[in-house]
Formats: sequence, structure tokens, C-alpha cells
Amino acid sequence: MFRTHTNGELNIQNLNENVTLSGWVQTIRDKGFMIWIDLRDRYGITQLVFDADRSSAELLESANKLGREFVIQIEGKVIERVSKNPKIPTGEIEILVEKLTILNESEVPPFTIEDQTDGGEELRMKYRYLDIRRNPVKDKLIFRHKMAQKIRNYLSEKDFIEVETPVLIKSTPEGARDFVVPSRMNPGQFYALPQSPQTFKQLLMIGGMDRYFQIVKCFRDEDLRADRQPEFTQIDCEMAFVEQEDVLEIFEGMTGTLLKDITGKDFGKFPRMTFDDAMKKYGNDKPDIRFGMEFVEVNELVKGKDFKIFDDAKLIVGINAEGCAEYTRKQIDELIDWVKRPQIGASGMIWIKFQQDGIITSSVNKFYNEEDLAKIVEKFGAKKGDLILLMSGNENKVRTQLSALRMELGNRLGLRNPKDFAPLWVIDFPLLEWDEETERFHAMHHPFTAPKPEDEYLLETEPGKARANAYDLILNGNEIGGGSVRIFDKDLQAKMFQLLGFTQEEAESQFGFLMNAFKYGAPPHAGLALGFDRLVAILDGNEVIRDYIAFPKNNSGRDVMIDAPSKIADEQLEELELKLNLIS
Amino acid sequence: MFRTHTNGELNIQNLNENVTLSGWVQTIRDKGFMIWIDLRDRYGITQLVFDADRSSAELLESANKLGREFVIQIEGKVIERVSKNPKIPTGEIEILVEKLTILNESEVPPFTIEDQTDGGEELRMKYRYLDIRRNPVKDKLIFRHKMAQKIRNYLSEKDFIEVETPVLIKSTPEGARDFVVPSRMNPGQFYALPQSPQTFKQLLMIGGMDRYFQIVKCFRDEDLRADRQPEFTQIDCEMAFVEQEDVLEIFEGMTGTLLKDITGKDFGKFPRMTFDDAMKKYGNDKPDIRFGMEFVEVNELVKGKDFKIFDDAKLIVGINAEGCAEYTRKQIDELIDWVKRPQIGASGMIWIKFQQDGIITSSVNKFYNEEDLAKIVEKFGAKKGDLILLMSGNENKVRTQLSALRMELGNRLGLRNPKDFAPLWVIDFPLLEWDEETERFHAMHHPFTAPKPEDEYLLETEPGKARANAYDLILNGNEIGGGSVRIFDKDLQAKMFQLLGFTQEEAESQFGFLMNAFKYGAPPHAGLALGFDRLVAILDGNEVIRDYIAFPKNNSGRDVMIDAPSKIADEQLEELELKLNLIS
Repeated sequence: MFRTHTNGELNIQNLNENVTLSGWVQTIRDKGFMIWIDLRDRYGITQLVFDADRSSAELLESANKLGREFVIQIEGKVIERVSKNPKIPTGEIEILVEKLTILNESEVPPFTIEDQTDGGEELRMKYRYLDIRRNPVKDKLIFRHKMAQKIRNYLSEKDFIEVETPVLIKSTPEGARDFVVPSRMNPGQFYALPQSPQTFKQLLMIGGMDRYFQIVKCFRDEDLRADRQPEFTQIDCEMAFVEQEDVLEIFEGMTGTLLKDITGKDFGKFPRMTFDDAMKKYGNDKPDIRFGMEFVEVNELVKGKDFKIFDDAKLIVGINAEGCAEYTRKQIDELIDWVKRPQIGASGMIWIKFQQDGIITSSVNKFYNEEDLAKIVEKFGAKKGDLILLMSGNENKVRTQLSALRMELGNRLGLRNPKDFAPLWVIDFPLLEWDEETERFHAMHHPFTAPKPEDEYLLETEPGKARANAYDLILNGNEIGGGSVRIFDKDLQAKMFQLLGFTQEEAESQFGFLMNAFKYGAPPHAGLALGFDRLVAILDGNEVIRDYIAFPKNNSGRDVMIDAPSKIADEQLEELELKLNLIS
Repeated sequence: MFRTHTNGELNIQNLNENVTLSGWVQTIRDKGFMIWIDLRDRYGITQLVFDADRSSAELLESANKLGREFVIQIEGKVIERVSKNPKIPTGEIEILVEKLTILNESEVPPFTIEDQTDGGEELRMKYRYLDIRRNPVKDKLIFRHKMAQKIRNYLSEKDFIEVETPVLIKSTPEGARDFVVPSRMNPGQFYALPQSPQTFKQLLMIGGMDRYFQIVKCFRDEDLRADRQPEFTQIDCEMAFVEQEDVLEIFEGMTGTLLKDITGKDFGKFPRMTFDDAMKKYGNDKPDIRFGMEFVEVNELVKGKDFKIFDDAKLIVGINAEGCAEYTRKQIDELIDWVKRPQIGASGMIWIKFQQDGIITSSVNKFYNEEDLAKIVEKFGAKKGDLILLMSGNENKVRTQLSALRMELGNRLGLRNPKDFAPLWVIDFPLLEWDEETERFHAMHHPFTAPKPEDEYLLETEPGKARANAYDLILNGNEIGGGSVRIFDKDLQAKMFQLLGFTQEEAESQFGFLMNAFKYGAPPHAGLALGFDRLVAILDGNEVIRDYIAFPKNNSGRDVMIDAPSKIADEQLEELELKLNLIS
């Protein structure tokens, strides 16, 4: 028993109690005749006091030897503080120390263990175990745990069964790149780490398991973008004998429960938007609907006025930045430069100001008179003081560009408060998307997604037009989950593989076991998977996933703390009957 | 909405309700004018009835087309059964079907989907998704889920935080063989899959996380013995600022909660036994204490009587098989043959019968007179009707052999009822064990286990005699968990690595990050890990782990259902800068 209490629990009720505490030395204030120490553990901070009047000389001397992050155990009496700290729960008391034991010393840590640390990202990653001592990291890991518990309890109460699916599975070239694991017992053969438990959860449905979930690690050997991890955690779910509506209801309930817990607010039914509408109104299949600034298309108002750029464009579309008519020329030019950056790639932007004095002016006054501009302003429903920004070009491209601008303005105008939450279902995704490069269709969601029954005939004629009962759960402009109603008919699945360019042999060798399973009474089923790392980050009002992972990897997929990956022994390679074949 | 109710919930209260059900056709009884179908889902079975009088000819005809495992949806009315089945909850009602929809057909499954199936192990593994439809498998997976939920809730209530530790880590040659994962982004380098999150949980303690747990997949590339899986699930735990007693209390509480839930009984404090006592009394560090049959050592009673075998033996030790004096000569010979099998390897066995008529006789009457035998019988506390079995030889060997015999007799005498539970802590394990082959010490638990403070001095003089605060949790003769108080001092850890034969460089390259972490205020900590697969099996009155894993691998580490491991594409190998180097 190293302690009778944690450092977060003693208060004025405990006055005069004899207590034993343990923890780390956070700060030392030495006034010579008195020493105050903040003792820290996971639960909080308790102030210790050593005092020339009341403590032995020996004790004071030992206290003098302490340094930051020393691990100590003390015995003492709870006394009332002279100068109280109302900011912390233990702020009314301190401990008059009677006995001090140094459990472990500490070198000076490479960065300060404070909420605002002086350590840079790289240093903190290398000493992640010290970083975890800091409240901002520790609290995030605890928050993550609480969310996982709530999710598990919610789903368990709804009769979902968590089933562990295997980690050592089979490599399939479809989708992202697999991590592979050489098998020593089967030389020349490899397991793969799962990108998701997709086929296993479908097999569980065929197995009658009916309501399955799993919070599970998944793996993708991708070239890492910022904040992408080679291993990530998914809330994976599947249900049988259900339609899309049943799935949406369950996971709306789950997400709503988490949101209510965090905000105290009831989110009720989540709004829904079709993929087509999302693209038209927000240029994006994961719109942030915490703010409006919806797209307005103005082709019919701006064409035929000799402005060549608009005349040549497939689509002219804009947004209304409310209250921004006062932007200076410089500010607007900066915005134009922003959309012209290669990451956005727009060739330009037209602005129309509806000034407070009622005058409407624009960067294209040469081509459009006041009446023309008034019509545009009217279509936008703009008020005095608003700024309309128009972009033009190829439909998909211009929508993507304008969407980026909309998000940027949302940020600049403070419309994206991370503590406000706006969940949204985007539904009716296309089944397939055409890849210009490989000249073939890709599955928009994945190859097991069923077309909408009413669109199934399109597979024969215009597969690109078929929609799916596929749905994404969006929170604050982030896709936090996605799923679909699955194919459960073997012939339809075979046709789907064919549309995706699989030969029958490829389909057979990669998904034969699933196709085979479909022969024995597969029930109708549908599911959803949520990215747990991202979900947790967003629910906590943050967008940086890495902070919510205890031991994350860097952008080269390295764990800089343990120095992995690393070389292995020659004997290990020999046993695996493998040889390095290094190119560089 | 494919159903209004599951197939497990309708009863006499629902009479006359119109319901929609979905599920699999379990059985069809066709009397010509009437067809009964048992409709099955995860929740139970509901009887459907089609009847020439009350159903349309068309409906009867469709019902006639159904086969086993077809997936159907029906609408109908709940009616009272004529002949009721009190064995199932829905046994008082049946559904008079009004509408039948075939959702999916099924080929005849390769084995019957019944509790007692006609399918062999191999076939059932290949079609595991069909096997899961059977109650014995399905129920085990559900049981597993429920146990996991209870464990998570128990630990969460005790302030434990579940932290996900990485799966892609670093290979360390210590312990069993690692599975490795080649890194494409770092050619020539490999990740390893964790054999346990041992170092990460210790780093979490250094990080102040204080009470950690995780139900987590671990991996071991071992030559598989029966019922060993290359991937398995562990309940991994660690606590800081604790002593052994605190750890035992928490996990005794956890295990007791599960046991109470299952049996309704309160198990209170679990008994404890030192490693030395366990070896002496049961010849085994995981004794099944559901029955006595404790070892009795009789060296001083049997030596010096010209019986060379005993005179030459280091140890003569036996057990009393109560009530077995009536065993025939044939039965006893069979037992002697049993211990002489190579798996046990005994050279022989001596028996002494204390017959019901009071006569004591033995297989060594030549050397021991009635008085000699009476003394032995007395030492065993044997009663009339008992059979004493003696074995002799080298201490460790004979204890192991006698332990096997004791377990066998326990089974034969029905003393090992799987629904009775006897938990036990075995404590005070030796810190090290000497390996004759490599002529070095191995860590009995692992290299991070601390010696008992009072034995620390022995590390200098007789390391083999030092005991550790290491403990195993035993249930019914199975080790379900083990743990220890850890080293948290960098110098002691360095000495430990040295004792285990690591050079300083090896220790540095493999555990440098942990040794480094010890410099920054490591708190005292201790932990435990439980084998979740085994725990669940035993709690469910079973010892076959495989049944509690949804998609297990066979003894060659293969998943015969998905056919993994398997070959990968040449491009994959090229990208990884690897070459096959097949020997055979």
C-alpha cells in the first residue's frame, strides 16, 4: 500500500487526517524556512509543505534533495492552507509532511511536464511516456477509454455481440496495400493484417450472429499523409435482417448518446442529405453543416454577357460570405491568392459586394451592369454588407475548389466551433466510380455494397449511374463512419466482381470463401464502420488524431520511442526462408 | 424491417398477434395436408405451420419448395399449439403462416446445423460460418462477449483505463518467436507483432497511467501444440504504487465476480499456496485443488529394506486413491502401463491396498512386512478400502509423473467436475530457472520481474535461490493468469539483464527505451495478464479453447476457411524489397 489517497481527492473534509500519498514532484518552491511541493499523480495535485518550525531538520534536508519528477511517498497530516487555490479540488488543504521516502529519482526530463510544455513534437514522441504524464495527453487517453466503454455498453444493451475476428488473415490486392506477415510454418506463404474485418463480419452474418460489433485494430500500408496511422482503430458493426433504416437508427442512437453525454443536448434525429445534394450544395460529400454558406449556381444569370471565362465554363457557382462586404481589396486579393494555391488550384475568383450603402459592385463591372448584379445578389438572398464569391470551371473541380474556400471562410469567420456538433447522414452514394487512369470502375464504398434495388437494372446499361444504399456519418465536416447494405446474392456478387474488372479466377481465389458462403443461405445484411480515433478526437473538440493514440507512429510509419521498425536477426530471416533484396 | 420479433420471444401472451419473422429453415415436417417448419435465428426457434385447410394452395406449394437452411421471411398469426413443447420458450405457440418470402436459397449444407452435428472437426472449420449457426458454437461466442463486457465494466469501475498499445512494434529475441512484418517504407526493416504489451504497459506506468488494462490480441510464432493458437487474446493489466497484495485483491475480485455470476456462489478470498508447497503437495505449479489426493513422501519409511529401486531413489512419494482398494489386478496393471507411457515416462509404480477386511497387501510384499506397510498406510491417513500408489526417482521428475497420475485419477474418479470451480493463487515463484541445455538462467516469469526484497542479496551469491513476488492465478488446475511485481530501478534491471546473459549492447538495443524510461522517475508497479481464451473456456466448464474463438487456426497455423497464409503477388515482394529463399 503506497498510498491511502490519490492526489486528487483530499479536501477540507479530511482536515487533521493522517494520510499517505505517492506521486511525482511537479514543482518545488523553496523559501529556505519553508518548502512547498506540488505532488502529482493521474488524479490531481496535492500541495505538500515542509517547514523549519514544524518539521525536523533532517526532513527538510531530504526535501531539499528532491528534483522535478522524483517519485516520492509521504506521510503527513491534512491541514488548512493559508492561501487557498480555488482552481483545484485540493486547493483548500495541504499536507504537513512527517515522513518522506524517495521511491525513485529522476534525471531532469527533456521537456517540462506541464500543460503548456516546452517540448517539441519530435521530442515528446521520443519520450512519449513522459508526454503521457501531461494532462492534455493523459486526459485524451482517458476520454478515449470512456467513449469506448460507452459504445460497448450501448451496443451490448442492443444485443450486439463483440466477436474478435482474426488479425492474421489473407492478402487481397483490392483496396489499399496490405501489411503482410511471412509464415515460418508455411514457407513462401504470408498472412496479411486486416484493412478491416469486412469479410469476417459478413461471414458472421451468414453464421447467424445477427448483431455484431468490434472495436478493432486495422492496418493499411499506405504512404502516410499527415495524421494517418498505419494502424488505426475501427468500430466495426454489422446487422442481419435489416434495411438501411435500421442501421441508421442504431448508430444515430449510439452517436447521439455520446453527444448527449458530452454536451448535455439531445440531438434527436440526425438530418440526412443525398450525395447529389451534398455535392451540389457544399461541393463535398462530408459537408460541415454547422454553418450555411450553401452553393448557389448562377449559370443562367451570368452567361451570354461577353465574359468569356463564364461563357466557357461548365458551371458558375458561388457562396455568400455574410457580412464580408467590408473586406478590403487587399483582403480579397489574399483570398484569391488562397484559392489559386496549387493545393486548391483555382484559376481565379470573381467577387460581388452588396455594400451597406446599397450599392452593388464587383470585379466584373465591365461585363455586368447593376441590374445583372442585382439579380445575382437576389438569387443568393444576400443582404446589405454581404460578399458574394463566384468560381467557375468544370463541375467537379469547381465544386471541390469552392468547398475548400467555404471551409476556409468558415474557419476564418469562427463558424466552426469545435465544441458545437452537427451530425449528418449523407446517403444514396453512387455504387461505382470511374477511374480515368485505369479505365475501370472502382467500388465507391467496397465491392460488397449492393446497388439500390430500383437501380439494379442500370448495372447492365449504365453502371456508373447506379446508386447504392450506402451511407456516411458526418460530424462537423469529417467522415466519422460509413457503411452500406451488402450484396447477399451470389450471382449479384459475381456480377459486381465482373464490373470491377476481376476475372472469375481472381474473384474465386480472393473471395472464394465468401462466394461459397453465399450458397448456404446468406441473410440480408448491412453494416457500418466508424473510425474510432477520429470520432474520439472530434467528440473531444479536436481534429488531431495522433493525440488520442497512446503510442502513435510518425509520418514515416516509425515509432521513434521504441525505434521500430528495425533490422531483425539473420536467423529470423533464415527461419522464414526469406532474403533481403534491397534495391538502394 | 425484416421482422417484428425474433424467433426466441413469442409465447402464449402474444396469441392472435400478427407478426413478421425471419430466419433459417431448421427442419421441415411434411404431412402432406400440413407442413411444420422450425424457423431458427440467433435467439431461438419458432414453429411455423402451413395447413391445407387454413392456407392457400399456392402458399402450401411454396412451402413445399423450401429446403434446410433456406432464409425466409413470413407473416402470420400467433396461434396456440395443439401439442406443446415445454422445452423451449416458444413451445406453447406456433405461427399460422399467411405470407412466405424466400430471401435466399441454400444448397444442402455439408453437415447438419444441429447441436449434435454429423460434421467432423475439419469440415466444420472449413465451413466455420455454418458451424457458428449451431447453438454450441454460437452460445460460446456470446458467453465470451458477456465475460469481456463484465471484465471491462468491473475494471472501469475500479478506475482502470483501457489503453490500446501498438500492434506494429519491435522484434526482441527474448521469449518465444516473433511474427515479423516487413516495412515497405523502411526497406530491410521489420515490425514485430507483440507477444504481449509488457513493455508498453510498463511505460504507461512510468507515464503515470496508474491503472491500465487492455483486452488485446497477442501473437506467438510457436510450433503449435494442440489447442495453441498463433494469435490469442490476453487481459493485460498493470498498476502503479501497489504491492503484490493490491494486485491479488483486484483480480481476485474480478475473477470472483465472474464466478459468482456463473455459479451464484460467493468465492470470498482465494486460497494461496507457495510455489514450493504446490510442487511438494501436488507436483505441479498449477494444482487442481477441487480434490485432495495430496502427495505423501515416505523416504524414511521405505529406505533400507533392501528394495533397491527405493534405496536408489532420491524421492519416494505417493498418493492415496480413496476407495480404490477394490481395483482388480488388471485395473492396476492398466494404471501402471498408463504411467509407463512415454508421455509420462515412469519406470514403474508400487501399490499398497488397505483392504476392506483390514488386510494390507502390496506389490512389494517381498520387501515390506505388514508392520512396514501399516506405517506407510498410517502416514497417508488411509482408510479401509483405499489404494496407495507410490512412485520413485529424481525429485522433479517423479513429482511431475505423480502429478499426471493424480490428475488422471481425478478424472477417472469424477473428482474434476467442470462446473465446480476452485481458484487458487500460487505465489513466491523462483525468480530464475536454470536451463541445463544453454547453461544459463532464464527468467521464470519474465526479465522485468523483481526479486523479493529480502532475497535480493541472493542475486550476488545464489541467484537460483532468489524468489520473486510473482504469482499465478490457477483455476481448476489451469493457469489462467500470471504476473509479478516489476523492477523499477534501472540498476537492478541492468543486473537482471546481465544475469540472463544479455551483453550490455544487447540489453541496450532491445530494451534501451525501457532502461531509458527508468531514468525519469519510474514508480513501483506490478501487473498481471490473463489468458482470455482459456479463462472463458474454463468458466464455461470447458477446456477446449478453440471453440471459444470465432475463426480459429488449425495446428499448422492455417485458417482453412479463408485459406491463409497464402502466396502473395511478386509485386508485393518487390515492393517490400524481399525475395523468397525457399530451402525445400
